[in-house]
Order: sequence, then C-alpha cells, then structure tokens
Amino acid sequence: MNFKGIGAQIFIEPGQTEAEIDNWFLILRENKLKFCRIRMFEKHIKQNNDTWDYSLYDFALNSAQKHNISVFITLFPDDPLSTFGGFKFPVSKDHQNNISTYIKNTVLRYKNHPALYGWVLMNEPGALRIPLDQSFTHKKYQKWLNSQSTSNYDNGYAKEPPLLEMFLRDYNTWYLNWISSEIRKHDTKTKLHANPYALFELLPQYNFSAYEDFLSSLGASIHPSWHFSKFSRNQYAFAVAVNNNLIKEGAGNNPYWVTELQGGNNIFSSNEPLCPTKEDIAQWLWTSIGSGSEGIIYWSLNPRGTGNEAGEWSLLTFQNKSTERLAMTSNVSKTIDEYKKLFENATSIKSPITIMYNQESIWLHDSLSVENDKYLLRQKGAIVNSMLSFGLALSERGVNASYIAMDNFDWNKENYSGQIIILSNTISFPSRHWNNIKLFVKNGGKLIVEGLSGYYDENKHCIMKTGFPLKDLFGAELSEFKFVSDNFNIKLTNPDIELNTHMQMGVLNIINAKAVATKNKEIIATRNNYGKGEVLWIPSLIGLWAWKKDNSALSKWLYSEVDKIVDGTHFKFKNQYHGILMQAMDSNKSIITVIVNMNNYPKVIELEFNHQLKGMVIFKTNNKSAINQSLIHLEANETIVAVWS
Amino acid sequence: MNFKGIGAQIFIEPGQTEAEIDNWFLILRENKLKFCRIRMFEKHIKQNNDTWDYSLYDFALNSAQKHNISVFITLFPDDPLSTFGGFKFPVSKDHQNNISTYIKNTVLRYKNHPALYGWVLMNEPGALRIPLDQSFTHKKYQKWLNSQSTSNYDNGYAKEPPLLEMFLRDYNTWYLNWISSEIRKHDTKTKLHANPYALFELLPQYNFSAYEDFLSSLGASIHPSWHFSKFSRNQYAFAVAVNNNLIKEGAGNNPYWVTELQGGNNIFSSNEPLCPTKEDIAQWLWTSIGSGSEGIIYWSLNPRGTGNEAGEWSLLTFQNKSTERLAMTSNVSKTIDEYKKLFENATSIKSPITIMYNQESIWLHDSLSVENDKYLLRQKGAIVNSMLSFGLALSERGVNASYIAMDNFDWNKENYSGQIIILSNTISFPSRHWNNIKLFVKNGGKLIVEGLSGYYDENKHCIMKTGFPLKDLFGAELSEFKFVSDNFNIKLTNPDIELNTHMQMGVLNIINAKAVATKNKEIIATRNNYGKGEVLWIPSLIGLWAWKKDNSALSKWLYSEVDKIVDGTHFKFKNQYHGILMQAMDSNKSIITVIVNMNNYPKVIELEFNHQLKGMVIFKTNNKSAINQSLIHLEANETIVAVWS
Amino acid sequence: MNFKGIGAQIFIEPGQTEAEIDNWFLILRENKLKFCRIRMFEKHIKQNNDTWDYSLYDFALNSAQKHNISVFITLFPDDPLSTFGGFKFPVSKDHQNNISTYIKNTVLRYKNHPALYGWVLMNEPGALRIPLDQSFTHKKYQKWLNSQSTSNYDNGYAKEPPLLEMFLRDYNTWYLNWISSEIRKHDTKTKLHANPYALFELLPQYNFSAYEDFLSSLGASIHPSWHFSKFSRNQYAFAVAVNNNLIKEGAGNNPYWVTELQGGNNIFSSNEPLCPTKEDIAQWLWTSIGSGSEGIIYWSLNPRGTGNEAGEWSLLTFQNKSTERLAMTSNVSKTIDEYKKLFENATSIKSPITIMYNQESIWLHDSLSVENDKYLLRQKGAIVNSMLSFGLALSERGVNASYIAMDNFDWNKENYSGQIIILSNTISFPSRHWNNIKLFVKNGGKLIVEGLSGYYDENKHCIMKTGFPLKDLFGAELSEFKFVSDNFNIKLTNPDIELNTHMQMGVLNIINAKAVATKNKEIIATRNNYGKGEVLWIPSLIGLWAWKKDNSALSKWLYSEVDKIVDGTHFKFKNQYHGILMQAMDSNKSIITVIVNMNNYPKVIELEFNHQLKGMVIFKTNNKSAINQSLIHLEANETIVAVWS
Repeated sequence: MNFKGIGAQIFIEPGQTEAEIDNWFLILRENKLKFCRIRMFEKHIKQNNDTWDYSLYDFALNSAQKHNISVFITLFPDDPLSTFGGFKFPVSKDHQNNISTYIKNTVLRYKNHPALYGWVLMNEPGALRIPLDQSFTHKKYQKWLNSQSTSNYDNGYAKEPPLLEMFLRDYNTWYLNWISSEIRKHDTKTKLHANPYALFELLPQYNFSAYEDFLSSLGASIHPSWHFSKFSRNQYAFAVAVNNNLIKEGAGNNPYWVTELQGGNNIFSSNEPLCPTKEDIAQWLWTSIGSGSEGIIYWSLNPRGTGNEAGEWSLLTFQNKSTERLAMTSNVSKTIDEYKKLFENATSIKSPITIMYNQESIWLHDSLSVENDKYLLRQKGAIVNSMLSFGLALSERGVNASYIAMDNFDWNKENYSGQIIILSNTISFPSRHWNNIKLFVKNGGKLIVEGLSGYYDENKHCIMKTGFPLKDLFGAELSEFKFVSDNFNIKLTNPDIELNTHMQMGVLNIINAKAVATKNKEIIATRNNYGKGEVLWIPSLIGLWAWKKDNSALSKWLYSEVDKIVDGTHFKFKNQYHGILMQAMDSNKSIITVIVNMNNYPKVIELEFNHQLKGMVIFKTNNKSAINQSLIHLEANETIVAVWS
Repeated sequence: MNFKGIGAQIFIEPGQTEAEIDNWFLILRENKLKFCRIRMFEKHIKQNNDTWDYSLYDFALNSAQKHNISVFITLFPDDPLSTFGGFKFPVSKDHQNNISTYIKNTVLRYKNHPALYGWVLMNEPGALRIPLDQSFTHKKYQKWLNSQSTSNYDNGYAKEPPLLEMFLRDYNTWYLNWISSEIRKHDTKTKLHANPYALFELLPQYNFSAYEDFLSSLGASIHPSWHFSKFSRNQYAFAVAVNNNLIKEGAGNNPYWVTELQGGNNIFSSNEPLCPTKEDIAQWLWTSIGSGSEGIIYWSLNPRGTGNEAGEWSLLTFQNKSTERLAMTSNVSKTIDEYKKLFENATSIKSPITIMYNQESIWLHDSLSVENDKYLLRQKGAIVNSMLSFGLALSERGVNASYIAMDNFDWNKENYSGQIIILSNTISFPSRHWNNIKLFVKNGGKLIVEGLSGYYDENKHCIMKTGFPLKDLFGAELSEFKFVSDNFNIKLTNPDIELNTHMQMGVLNIINAKAVATKNKEIIATRNNYGKGEVLWIPSLIGLWAWKKDNSALSKWLYSEVDKIVDGTHFKFKNQYHGILMQAMDSNKSIITVIVNMNNYPKVIELEFNHQLKGMVIFKTNNKSAINQSLIHLEANETIVAVWS
Repeated sequence: MNFKGIGAQIFIEPGQTEAEIDNWFLILRENKLKFCRIRMFEKHIKQNNDTWDYSLYDFALNSAQKHNISVFITLFPDDPLSTFGGFKFPVSKDHQNNISTYIKNTVLRYKNHPALYGWVLMNEPGALRIPLDQSFTHKKYQKWLNSQSTSNYDNGYAKEPPLLEMFLRDYNTWYLNWISSEIRKHDTKTKLHANPYALFELLPQYNFSAYEDFLSSLGASIHPSWHFSKFSRNQYAFAVAVNNNLIKEGAGNNPYWVTELQGGNNIFSSNEPLCPTKEDIAQWLWTSIGSGSEGIIYWSLNPRGTGNEAGEWSLLTFQNKSTERLAMTSNVSKTIDEYKKLFENATSIKSPITIMYNQESIWLHDSLSVENDKYLLRQKGAIVNSMLSFGLALSERGVNASYIAMDNFDWNKENYSGQIIILSNTISFPSRHWNNIKLFVKNGGKLIVEGLSGYYDENKHCIMKTGFPLKDLFGAELSEFKFVSDNFNIKLTNPDIELNTHMQMGVLNIINAKAVATKNKEIIATRNNYGKGEVLWIPSLIGLWAWKKDNSALSKWLYSEVDKIVDGTHFKFKNQYHGILMQAMDSNKSIITVIVNMNNYPKVIELEFNHQLKGMVIFKTNNKSAINQSLIHLEANETIVAVWS
C-alpha cells in the first residue's frame, strides 16, 4: 500500500467568486488534505457563440497549484437530456462527436497543468436501465447481438442467456474504453480513473478485469445514504469495508481509491438520509485506509447551489466554516502524516478465504425475483445478501474474506491448500468455470457450497437434472428441492449446530460423499474429499435467513470450518462480536489494526494473536477507549487504530 | 360418474434421450397411471428449412402406446411473441394461417394414433389483458362493436355496459370454436378439450354454455400456488372442491377433467410457493374424484429443463426417482382400481342449494374496485369472495352448494320447491333474468339475497332508484345504503343471531314483506312470501366480512335457513367444523364419502345421516384415523374415504 | 356577510320524468332551501342531427321559477374524451370552437330566465396532470415558455424554476378567463362563478387574485370523502373551516360560496367513503356559515342514475323521501330564517394572525418528495401539513388564523403592529417578497419562522448559502441543517417548553439576534428585533411532527407567542381543547359563536371573553348541550350556535 492522502470534491459553478474558490483550496491545505476533484461541466464552458471559456476552471486549477493540491478532473461533457448525474452513454452519433471535441479541448488545455493528478473518465459509470429506446444504443445492441457466437457448451436443451444484461456489461466497457482512447490521443501520461457506484446493486454490470487494462486506478463512490439500503445504520462501516474490498479485488494489479465518500447532510437527496457524525467519519476513513485504498475523496467540500442536492452533502457550513466532520478528517490526516513511514509501507493482509460471486447468478436471479416478494429468496438482491451474510458471519469473528468475481479469481495455481472458496447461493455455475472449480479442490482447496448454488448454468438451464456436471466433485447430486416454510431448522453434525434456514430444503442423493446432516431421514448436507481438497455442500439457504435474523449459529458453524486455516495468519476475535469490525495491515515488522465499534454502546472485546506483540494506540476518538494486552475497550461508535510490534 | 383415471403431463423437449422418455411412460404404468398429456411445440417441430420434424413426438406417442397410456395432445402453435404459457389469440392474419397449417399437419399425423385420447385446443384459454394494441384483436373488437345491437330493455337512462369484458368473453369463445372447427376439418371423431385456469379471477371470461356445444369435455388447471390467493394454506382442499364444482356445472352435460393439478415444488414460479405434501396429494385427488371429475392429470411428471419453471413442478426427483407425492398418487389409483365397480357407477350427489353468480356483477365491480383498497367491498375480487363465504359457511356444516352462472341455470322447470338460490352480493341483476328469478320463487323456490345484490342492471344503471323491478317479488324496496363503518353488528330475529357486517347498511322500505331485523328503528332485513316460494333479503355485507373473519354466526344462521331442505338428502355434520370438508357420491345403493381434515391437528367430528348405514373405510393416509359409527376421527391433514351401505 | 342561503344540486338527466323533476324543486322549497345547481350537459342537448334540444332543462328552469328557487347553471360542453368530471382544457382548436358555440347557445337561451342566479364556468377547475400529450396544450405550453422573460433577480447561479407548474397555473387562469369572456360576449350582467376543489392538494394551481377580476364570486367543492385525506375522521369540521378560509381569502373582495358539499352516501366513489351523519351536517353547515360563506350548495339532492357514483351522494332516499341529513339541513335553514336580521349583518371576525403560504414552496417540495417516503418531510404534502399543524394548534385554543397566499397578502400598509405572520416550513422565499417581509416587520409586524423556511428562492437555488438575503432581518443565518433522527427533542426558553421535532436540526450563526434555544452548545432558535417588529426563528420541523403526533407542546408554545395579540379581540378557550373548534361573527353589537365538538364523546370547555356578555343558544342538535356562563357543555359531535350580547 502506498496511501497518498485524503481530499474532497470542490463543486465549481458559475456564481461563485474567486475569493470563495481560493478559500476552499486554502481550507483543504489547512486541514492537511492533499487532493481535490473537480467536475468540469461543458455546459459552463461552451458558450452560445461556440467559443470555449475555461476561465472558471483555470482559476480553480491555478488556485489548487498555489495551495499544493492535486486535482482529479471529472470529464463532464454536455448532455442533451440533462440527466442529473450525467449521461451513461452517448445518445447519438453527433453527441459522441461532441464528446470527442470536448475531451480534446479539455485534455489539451490541462494535460500539462502542474496541479493535474488524473482524469476521471465520467461520473459514476453504470446505468440503472438500458436506453434501448435511444437509437444509438439500439444499434449498438443489434451489432453486439450479431457478434454473439453460440457457446461451445451445448447439451441440446434450449438456452435463455441474459442477453440484455450481458450487453450492458460489454457496452459499459466499450464506452469507458472509448473515452480512454480519446484521452490517450492527446495525453499519454496522465492517470485514468473511473468510479463504479451502488456496488451492492450494480455489481454484475462492471467488468473489472477489462477495466484493468485501460485504467490506472479503479475507484468507488461510497454514499451510505444512497448505497447501503441492504444494511442497517449500525452496519455501515462493515458495508464500507466490503465496498472497498470489492473494488480492491476488482482493480487487480492497479491501485484503487474511494473516489466519493459522503461528507455532509442529506435533506431531500438519498434514500436513507443522514448527516455523518464525527464518529462515522473516523470509521469510514480508517476502514477505507485499512482496506488498502490509495486515497479517499469526499463528496464534497462545498455544496451545489441549485436544484436537487442544493445545500446538501457538504463538509463545510453555509458560511464556509469547518464542521466536526472536517475537524475529524483533519485529525485522521494528521495521524497519517505523523506515522508516515508506517503507512507508506503498509499493505492490507490478504485473506485465505474468498467469497465468490458471478454476474450470471445475479442476472438470472434478477429475472426471477420480485421487488417485494414475501420470501427473502425471491426478493431482488438475494444473491448478494447471501454473500454478505457469509462475510458478516466471518467479520464478526475478526476474519475478513475477499469478495472476488469468478472471472477474476486466479485459477491457475498449482496448489490451493490453505485456501477456501465459499459459494453462497451462487445459483449459476457458468460452464466455463466447471473445470476451474474442480481443479481448485483437486489441488488442495476447500469448497463450501450453500443454498441454490449450481441450480443453473449460464443459460438458465437447470443442471441439477440428470447429469449434474459437478457430481464427481461433490460426491453427491441433488434429488430435489422442497418448499418447507419461510423458516425451519436443520441440524448439522460435527460440530452439532442447529441452523435456521429458509423456504427450500435441498435433498441430496449420495454417490461418494458422507452425509453430515439429515432431516426426516433425507440427507441434506454432505462432505466429500476430492483430490487434495474437500467439498462441503449444504443446499439450504442458511445465509439468507441469517442475514436479517440471528447469525450466531451461522457464524459459529462457519468459523469451525475455517478456524484452522486462518489460525496464526493474523489477528482474530476470541468470540463472535456483533457490530465489531477489524482490519489488519502489515508494515515492515509491525501490524496495524483498525478496530471499529459500530454499536451505539461501549464494548470490550478480546483478540487472539501472537501474544509477544504489544499494541500502541495511534488513533482513537474517545479518551476512555483503550487497549489492555489482548482486551480492547471501545467506547460507543469508537474507532481505535493501533500498531503492534 | 365414470372415473377414468389419473395421469400426468410428460414435458417433451429437445435434449431429452429416448431412454428418458420411454422411462417416463414406464413410470406412469408402474404407478397405475393411465393418462398423460403432451404439449406439442411447433417450435420444436418446424425446421428452419420449412420441413416438419415430428420424430421427438412420434417416439413419445409410440412409447405411450407401448405402455398403454392414453394421451391428451395440447396443440401449441408457434408464437411470434414467445409468450411463456402460449398466446391466447392470434397476433395477425398470417399467424392465424400458420396456426391452421400447424393444426392440419399435427391432426393428420396423429388422429389415428392408437395412443391418442383427445386434443386440448390450447394451453389454458383466458387472457389477463385484452391485446387491443395488436391489430388483429383491434379489428375483431371493432367488428364486434358494430354487431352489438341495442338491448331490448331500455328505461331511457344512459347505459354503460362493460364492453371490453363482453368482447373478451365472446372473443375467447370465437377462438376456441375456430380451433375446434379447424381440427374438425381433418378429424371428426377425437375428443376435444379445453382447460380454463385461475378460475377465481377469470371466471366471467368463460362462456361455459357456449363451449358445451363444441367441446367433448371441459377441464380446469388447478395450481394452488398460482390460483388460490384468495384462500389460506389450510383451505386449499375447499378451493379444489369449489374449482371442480364451477367446472362441473360449467361443463353442463359434458364430463369434466382436472386437466392440470400441481405435482411438485415451486421455487421462483407461482405467487405462493409450495411443495405438495403427500397429504395434500390425497386431499386434492379425492376431492376432485368426489366432485365428479372424469380424470385428473398432473402438471407434471418431469420438469422443464430451461427458463422460468426449470426444475420445478415435478412429481419425480431430478434423477427420475419416485417421490412421496407419486407414491401417494399411486395408492389412490390402486384404491380406485380395487373398488372399480363402486367407482364406475358413482355420481356425486346434486345439491338443492345453488350459489349463483353472473359475469356482469364481477365486471361492474371490477370497474369500481381498487387493488388494495382498505375496504373489503372495494377490493378486487369481492364479488367472488362473497360467494365463497356462503359456500364455506355451508361446507363447514357438511353441506355442499353448487356454483352456477345465472346464464347456465335451468330456469324452465315448473316446480322449484325444495330448491334454494343464494344471491350473495350479486351487484348486477341483468334484465334478461328478472323474470326468471320471479318465476323461480313463484314456482316454489327460496331466494336468499344478500349484500348489494341488485344494485345495478347490466348497464351499470342503479335500479334501486324509483322503480326497482323486483319490488313485488321482494315485497320491499331499498330506501338507501348508508356507510356505517368497516365493521358493525346487525341482529336478526327468528332465530336470534347477531351477525358482523361491513361498511354499508341497507335500509328497506316495506311494501308487503315482514321485517326480520331492524337497527335504530330502520328495517334492514325482510322476508316475503311470493307465489309458492319466499324471498329473504338482507342488504348487508355479512358474507364478505365473514370470509376473512369469523364465520360462525353466518354459518349458524345460513344453516337454519337451509336445514329443512337438506334434511335427509345426504350426510351432514352435527355442528359447524372449521377446516372439515365432506363430499358424497351415490353408487348403486351405497354412498361414498370423502372427508378431509384441512387442519394441521387431529379432529373428531360427528355426522348426521340415516343411522342404518354403516361405514367402511377404503382409504386413509394415517392408521390412527377411524370411523366409529357416526363419529369420525381424523388425524391432521387426513383424507378418509368410506363406503356406507 | 350576507348569508343568502342553502341549496342543492339537482342532477338532471334523460330518463327522469317531469313529475320527478318538479317534485325535487318542491322538496327544496318545503325544506326552506333557496338555491339549486344544475349541470347542463351538451351531450343531452345536442342531437345527432345537429339540432339543440333544451327541453329537459327548460322544464327544470321553469320548475325552479315556479318554486322560487335560484339556479346556478354549470356549463358542461361535450368532451371528446368523456372524462368523468369533465375536461379541464380544450383538447383541440375544434373543440374550443364547439365550446364557444355551446356557450353561446346556452347563455342566449337562459340569460334572461328569472330563475337564473349565476353561471358556473365549468365543473371544478384544476387538473390532476398537465395534458402535454394533447397538441392543444402542448402548443399553449410552447408559446407560454417563449413568453417567459428572465427574472430580474439574478445571483449568477443556475435557475431551476418549476416551469410546468407555473404554466399549469397560468393555463388554468387563461381558460377560466376565456370562458368568462365567451359568456360576457352574450351576457354582461349574470354572476360568474368557479369552484376549485381538492384544495389541500391543488392549492398552488389556483391564481386566486387573477380570478378576482373576472369572477363575481369564488367557490369551493368540499367533499370530505374525496378531499380530506390529510385529516382524521374527527377533524373534518376543522378541515371544512380551513377550506372555507382559504377560499374566503382567495376571493379577495368578492364573496365566496361552498359550491359543493357532500350530501350523501359513498359506496364505490371517494377515497375514504362515508355517509354524513346528521351531526356532520350541522357541523359542516354552521362551520361554513361561521367562516363567512355567502351560501352552501349540496352535491346533491338526487343521485346520478348510471355509471360511477350512480345511486351515491344523495340527500334523498331512492324513493325521493327525506333523510335525517335533509331534515337537519332544513333545521339549520329555518334557524337562519328565524334570526334573519342577525345573520344579514354578521361578518366573520378577521384574525390578526396569518398563516402564509406560497405556490413555489409547494411546487419545489413536490419535485423533491416521494409518495410514501418514511420521513414526514419527504412525503407529498408536507408543506401544507406544516401549515395545517400551526393552524390546528391555534384552533384548539379557540384562535382562528387566516390562510393567505404570499401573493395575496396586503403588503402595503404602514403599520403592522398587532399582526403576526407565520411561515411554517415555507421552503421557498420568492425574491419578489424579500422586501415585503422586511417591511412587514420593520412596520411593527411579528414574524414566526419555522422549519426549512427560506431554504430556496423561487428557482430552487439554496439561498441559505453565503449571502442569505434576510440575514439582517433575522439577525442570524443558518450554519447548517443536520439530520438527527426521525424524532428528537429541542428545548425552548422563556417560556421553557420541550418540543418534539423531526429529522433536521437547523444550526444558527448569530449576528444580532438573541439565542432562545441551544442543543449540544449549538444555537437552534433566535429572536431578533427589527424596526418596530420582531422575528422568531426556529429552523426545526416542530409543526410537521406535531401534525400527526401530540401537538400539546406546540400549541402551548405558539399560544404564548400570540396571546397578547389576540387578547380581547374575540372569544378564546381557557385551555387547549382537542377536537373543539370555535368560530365567531360580529353582528351589530352582538357576537355569534359556532362551537363544534368533533369528538365522539361529550366535552365541557371554558371560554375566555368579555364577561359582561351573556350567551343565548339559538341552535344545537342535542338537548343536553348547554351554555352556563363561560362553561359550554357539548354532547358528542355537537354543534352549538349562540348569540352573545
């Protein structure tokens, strides 16, 4: 890791005075913030007489230089439809040409400006709907359709691939790549960046590994009030951590940023309005640092003046004075500066556990689910909920998993011993990965399979029917799913744990595996050795039920399956602690821990680790919080950062 | 009755092996099932080079013949719009021509096949919406509109007949008739069949008496998880019984089938997912047999492979093994075989009580109601709910009513003594039936009128206003309806019963009738003798309120109005028993009873009947269930079938 | 005031007999009703052969004359789209021409008829949506858009005025004005009238002061079952009072009428069905009289025959007999006749307190709000709810406020001492009124500012940002809003009151003002002297929270701010009384009070007034109700009318 610093969006618009603008850069500097981001509206630049007036932005860039602030410029070409957050695709060929002209003018003007740090290709790529009603997109879709060859895998049955979703993913990639190439025509050196948003909803739309080739860094917009509808208010730091990890893993070998982090109050904007407290600020910043981000940029230092969001989201008061949010940010930045050496060499510790997902599972589920169905499995978002449930059950034991797309995982190793992949309700197993999964286990990996995982291939064909392709690997096949009721219990043996589960009971037919659970004399979970690895299969929805209900049994059981593997690799919790989150970084011979108490009350927790290490607190928000050997006392909503050496 | 047997859909599709297909027919035979149904997809048959390849279906038909299985073939021409369950109307003239060609080819190919039992005209006639946006339908509508003559009945006021709904009903009839005539061009002997579905929602769309002319038998799709949203989980056997009766009465002099009955599990398909238990299977099969069906066919033996419903609805496991559902079916089929003589001559006992409905009441109410209104009366489906409430109140006394459309009732008898018609919240009295209703009472019938019955004529004209056409018959006229509150009480005299009612209190102005209830000195129920019969009028919504609340008072009162008439005609219960259903069949000198306990707990009930009869149990699912003279001990969810002689 | 009398709509339609029609006019006369309203359907008049047959209406008008009833004729030209309540705008140029012809024919026919009292321009102006899909409207919009000049006020920032809403308001005005001018071409003397409806939803659509120029009187449709969804069942008299006041203030120097008042039962029509009780009738009539209306007309004497609403809304039974509703109406009318002198000279007492609103606040809020948001502030209608909450808090102390649009207030006085303006969550301060507000305070007025008042200008620009235009007046500026939680407390000093508030805490930065409340050391309310007046500023949503929860603290605090000013001006309550409403009229040297108990239980209240006055009851519905000096005993749902002299 090479943490570069914290910054904030400065929202530039006509009507502001030069004194105001210069003051905002001064405020950044005085608060030890090193970056800013500016949205460069063509609408403000291009004049009616077709001249281009960049004076507003010239002043801002020069002011940034004066105050030693590095600037991300977000390209923001004019939008014939005046979409609030910016268009996601050109609406016509003419529009595409205009975008090209705007990029040329803007890149040529600023590419050598000393304050420029990078180009942000657009604001928040990712579309909430496919604009097939626009002819530009419609043509692209037809062309894409024609280019789709028949899949190599063919079992003779009909196919129903999720064509529109597949197209949208490719279309996003095409457009980002096109913008990159337009910039690169004029500027071959400046860093390129893009910031996916609403990741818990739009995840399957982003082809991260394709982005890795043309971006210099990946980023994320993280606005709890917009993006965390899956989470309760006191899970937001956990959500920030997962959002960071998804982007970190998506970035591949590139670094990643938190490109937007909510800085201020909501009134009318957002789904679940909030004003971050100073404790939120500490939690979200440190969690992002502990996750391995290269930098964090707020949205925003100052508020928009007009329209939706006017007066909202700001780190500053209406009089441009500091707030407790900015003060806390400044404290964090100062701590980083103070322990510069430590953080310069810190890298977040890689987890041996992968919670794996794929776009097909989410797409096929989306096509089958209903917004407010009474059953969790049939509600929009259930696939991601299953994944998060497993992640949370581990996180509450101090164990962090990685969240990696099936297409992004490194399947080419020769040895996977000490590695675990969790497939939680991964309802589609695309045929291109069947062999990968087998080899992972054969070469020593451990596979935990839950819920309706493997029900479909990528073409919405039910592969559980006669001839399940992973029958050998699993040592069993599914006899049938049976609806039981919204909620019922199953009992696992070794260890003996009773788990709450949901709706469908998967009944197994054993080939080589051993039964690890039965209900009414039917086998409902198996364990199978295969090559050097093993497969544990529980075709019941234990994750989904635990997600919004009690996850204690899930956490206990899951920990028992992973404890040997995570032993000694890093810090863990002695027990499950609801609402506690820990992240760890290696830095030379020290370990940095970030421990967050998301609860509204104090909590004492006990760590498990190499007890020769001693912890020194380098950051906390409340004087009463403290470390006493392996015991950590955390005040309500506290974030403690410690160095262990 | 002439019960012919049980069967199951075999879902044939490319990708299946011949061994698989033959095995399915073998499974039917081994389980004593005698019928199957096959959907014959033009999409699988017609090749790109315009040749027709029936080899897949040839194999299936030959396999059926080999295993002595009779086949219903469902015609399934290609659909330009790929509607999941099949189109309901041609989308163009070309499409209609293609359908004709498909029918010709298919009928000529199989009409002499020994395994063929009948043609199913299409899958589930009945449209959820009228496709007026399709020009084929739009033209048909315009033509239909022009053919509508002014009604004979004219009181000078404006008319607002439900034109679109009237058209849809006629359009359905036209299309089914057209298919029939296309088949009959090539095949004059094979039976023709059609299976209305979702009857509790689509009832007024089906012109049963018109179908009687061109069909050989009528059928029903009965899928509790799709069609029983009006009912709670432990009312499904009652719903199966009513659904059977609606189709039986609709079939007229033709026999009727349960053409589709849910055979397996739901995951994503259906509104209220379930997997039938073996007890469900026994309840639904015996209830359908007791209702007088000629046969029952499951949906389905094996599951679809791809797309929506893939892997769902199946009687078999994914490995084509039997399930408890199939085993129970096999038991029922064996019982029928064992008591062949008995069942060959059995006919379900005709009820003296008719719960009458008409399409106009449902249509006019639909145009006035709102999906989730806070008041029961104003919610979609309230008219059918009122009808069901009266049916349930009788059923829980062991008394089964017939559910007959006003247009289907035999109005031409000279003597109706001993007959009862219930008009429960029948908000429209079409003018063509005013005289029928009068003659029914004049000739000895008893009429029970409830709720807003008679508020409108067929043209949405309020006929309660000056000049109510049944004033003489009722001996009273409605002064006004008054909204009171969601729920309030009224008290009837002779017998004294306090009934909960809903929303509107109808106040009566007496002409000849006698008051039988008053509230705040206003008359709210009357009894009138007319000719040889009588009319009881309670213009309050006592049925609607009882439907989802407590129906004890309704059941007690209603039974007191019908007990004399049903006395001695067949078996009854000694008391009201919630969750208990009984059906009775005559067979020579014996009576067969089917008694179902829909409750999740055991229940002991007492029968009233001619005590010289003795009961012998011929079927039960639980050994502890037993008959002890007039006492029946039923285990939870039990179905007991007994012969009394 | 010059109360002219009560009347009822007679719904005339083909199918009725002349005897029926004449009988309805006779019924009006016999019940002392003096007015009727008739909807004159072109559809009934214009024949297929293009002749015009007015005979039905001729008969009605002549019958009215015979029985001495004055008639409002509602113009009702034919509607190509058959909209149920009538179109709101022409759908084409041809249609506009047809309307013109219809008006000409109708006006020329009846303008000299002795029974004619006035023309109602159309039924219920006000559109639920803007029909931009109709080319007539679309062209009007384009033309209007082109005519919009840039506002004089320009701070350099972008503008987002609510163009569609602004247009709709102007378009309504244009169309009403056009109808007026069409009538005036042929009839220069007859009174012109229009009746806005659903005022609590459509308020900002009506440009009352523009109407004042071409109307003779303004009116209101008041149907509790359609229009009072903001209110609970036992607040309807309060809602009637506010609805009356809004129209009274909107009428300006013109008189106003209650043009439609619900007269009978709902079954399928209306949102919240009801049948008015006789107590409702007394409450609604007397409240409308006490508010200062010139007359009240029921909808309707007799019901429609066919279609939606058939058989509903009627004062009469289906046999044209009287009901308790008509009997009560007759009693009220007789009381008015008996005390003719008193009522002829009565005027409702003008309040020194104005609850002020403007269309921009409602429009901007509408664009930001969501139908069922979980937060009160973000739900549709929150602006009006805030206003009503302040009104109710005062009303429950016997103090009535006026509800006046900012554009309609008289800003040109030289002395406002003794006057209060309340700006409750008035989120937009249009720039054209900034100086008006300043002068009001400077010249002695008291301003109470609450909630998010002043957040935007008229262009959705946040004026709280640097440079708040009323900084001098308020002596403070807003530092920031902070979301706290759905509900939290703030504590005011002098008097010490703890108020429940909602969602956003406004933090103030003081310039000259004095702090009157702090929370966590931040200032959250201020008081400032300015000129001869003062400003009290509480930027928290205390009204919104009190509206549906407990308003005791709000009422106590608000009363403490106004008590001196309302002292001695008229009658008040000794305490806050939930569910009690009082209105007072001056008549020569007497005062008439109308006191309503909206509760379903009896209540004793105590008045504060000049104790030399003695009260004489002239109307009550229950013998047990009584006045004993300053104590008033009201039976459940009672209305007592007394004269104090």
